[in-house]
Amino acid sequence: MLTVNAYAAPSATEPLVPTTFERRDVGPRDVLIDIKYCGICHSDIHTVRGEWGGIEYPLAPGHEIAGIVTEVGSEVTRHAVGDRVGVGCMVNSCRECVNCLKGEEQYCVQGNIGTYNATDRDGTTTQGGYTSAVVVDEDFVLRIPEGVDLAAAAPLLCAGITTYSPLRHWGVGEGKKVAVVGLGGLGHMGVKLAHAMGAEVTVLSQSLKKQEDGLRLGADHYYATSDPETFKELAGRFDLVLNTVSAKIDVNAYLKLLAVGGALVNVGAPPEPLEVNVFTLLNNRSSFAGSMIGGIAETQEMLDFCAERGIGAEVEVIPASKINEAYERVMNSDVRYRFVIDNSTLAG
Amino acid sequence: MLTVNAYAAPSATEPLVPTTFERRDVGPRDVLIDIKYCGICHSDIHTVRGEWGGIEYPLAPGHEIAGIVTEVGSEVTRHAVGDRVGVGCMVNSCRECVNCLKGEEQYCVQGNIGTYNATDRDGTTTQGGYTSAVVVDEDFVLRIPEGVDLAAAAPLLCAGITTYSPLRHWGVGEGKKVAVVGLGGLGHMGVKLAHAMGAEVTVLSQSLKKQEDGLRLGADHYYATSDPETFKELAGRFDLVLNTVSAKIDVNAYLKLLAVGGALVNVGAPPEPLEVNVFTLLNNRSSFAGSMIGGIAETQEMLDFCAERGIGAEVEVIPASKINEAYERVMNSDVRYRFVIDNSTLAG
Repeated sequence: MLTVNAYAAPSATEPLVPTTFERRDVGPRDVLIDIKYCGICHSDIHTVRGEWGGIEYPLAPGHEIAGIVTEVGSEVTRHAVGDRVGVGCMVNSCRECVNCLKGEEQYCVQGNIGTYNATDRDGTTTQGGYTSAVVVDEDFVLRIPEGVDLAAAAPLLCAGITTYSPLRHWGVGEGKKVAVVGLGGLGHMGVKLAHAMGAEVTVLSQSLKKQEDGLRLGADHYYATSDPETFKELAGRFDLVLNTVSAKIDVNAYLKLLAVGGALVNVGAPPEPLEVNVFTLLNNRSSFAGSMIGGIAETQEMLDFCAERGIGAEVEVIPASKINEAYERVMNSDVRYRFVIDNSTLAG
Repeated sequence: MLTVNAYAAPSATEPLVPTTFERRDVGPRDVLIDIKYCGICHSDIHTVRGEWGGIEYPLAPGHEIAGIVTEVGSEVTRHAVGDRVGVGCMVNSCRECVNCLKGEEQYCVQGNIGTYNATDRDGTTTQGGYTSAVVVDEDFVLRIPEGVDLAAAAPLLCAGITTYSPLRHWGVGEGKKVAVVGLGGLGHMGVKLAHAMGAEVTVLSQSLKKQEDGLRLGADHYYATSDPETFKELAGRFDLVLNTVSAKIDVNAYLKLLAVGGALVNVGAPPEPLEVNVFTLLNNRSSFAGSMIGGIAETQEMLDFCAERGIGAEVEVIPASKINEAYERVMNSDVRYRFVIDNSTLAG
């Protein structure tokens, strides 16, 4: 057993505090990773605050992990000591169901095993990347190619794949018109990736506050959703509207922005149901859909794609002592565009 | 001008009565059709009863028209006197917009011109197929191949294409699992067509009352949606769930029947919005979508497909004098599976 330093939530209502966890011994197919950086995802905050229920405390969140391999099990073939690697939202799955066999482990019929707050196959509760090291089955460890800075790579493991996968699945490329709703951690990756895939990219943000950033990140157009003219002007425009906002939206207004056969795809979900006017779907054969992260093979494809094109997340690196402050700033949308913890600052 | 016999609604609250309408003179690109049969679609009833608003009375509905060409304009090239032809839900469109140019006239940006209760390009209100003859632009007239009985062909023009188009669009064929919700006019065509395309077909009906019919029409399985076990047993099963029921359904329950990447496609719409739990969409990359009839070229493709495979609608042919009674029976789901008017019985 290895004791690792961590920042963890003692309960749903207290700030995160320094603590330690035990990591399992490195098994034959395991990889031990010295975590260098871990992104702060909005899901971390929802989870530790108990908003999605079912939490075992203390809990160290974090599923945007980038680090260096420091030990490998006897049967490990994919990774070697010294490799730059990452871990995303899953650390295991059943590997036997129809979805796992198709490489869509995120949709594992038995449920994928989350990087934190899940019950691992050894019966322990998984602890995430707000820790100094993690032991992960090699099949769920990704290679981070040279050419992507480790700090900028960390958010690719969740924000990157969460936007990459639907862009690929709905056929985004040259000649396609894509709108990205929300320019936050997910949205800014959606803009970079859709632009790199050759699409014409429009940002739909509440205001024009981040317009300059949006255009710099690769958007061709930028509109404020607070302006009703936006919905008139852009009616019928897009092949894909990628909604990165988890708050409740007027889904029918966004569906009307779609061209015939287009899709509005949510990658986040509000807790309350959304009311869909079915005539809106009928009137242009449109779809309202959802997408959840991506499979392991597709995550590797995304990392390779980003490395080839020099794409990383825009990050603000913080010491662990600033995690609670960062949470408040995330809640106030005051981050451009992802906080990343420098894990060397976890108390030792 | 040609005077034609008709059955028409004098108002939203009165039964349909015999009357006459004037048809425009046959223009250079027009076809005059002696209507032999016209199907009774649920939309006819919604429309004449004013449930969808905006009606100019008197109105003769009917958009499942089958007949014989009796006159053609000087520039007509596609059709000749004596041809077996059909007319569906549209009689014109702008022909210039992006959708018309793609052959998706049903999604014409300016709105397609409906076969009844629409303003035609000459400024008159269109009157449908509960009439003895109709004049239609040749481009919106379909060939009905030999080998499909005209009475059985009539419902293909709406019920047929409305189910054929989404089955094709969502890639139904060998190895695909399709559920058809509702075994009425649309549903029975959905079963026949999906079966002919090679899919494994399941009917989801309120009860098992029509099970024998469903299996005879081509279904492999038949389940009652009134039995909660149905939703447990079929969870994650289908690539496509084609919902032909316009009443409000628990959309989330049906979304859970989808395999990863599957689609629930509505071809009818309840007037009230449906509440969608977005987590359900995220959890298996599923889509909630809509589809409206089909383009002219696709409608011809469907008619040819049906002729090759000997597919027609199951019809109960009635004289015009039974139209009002038939409406009541449609409202009570007491028809197997489409009423078709014998237009020779329109008072002359």
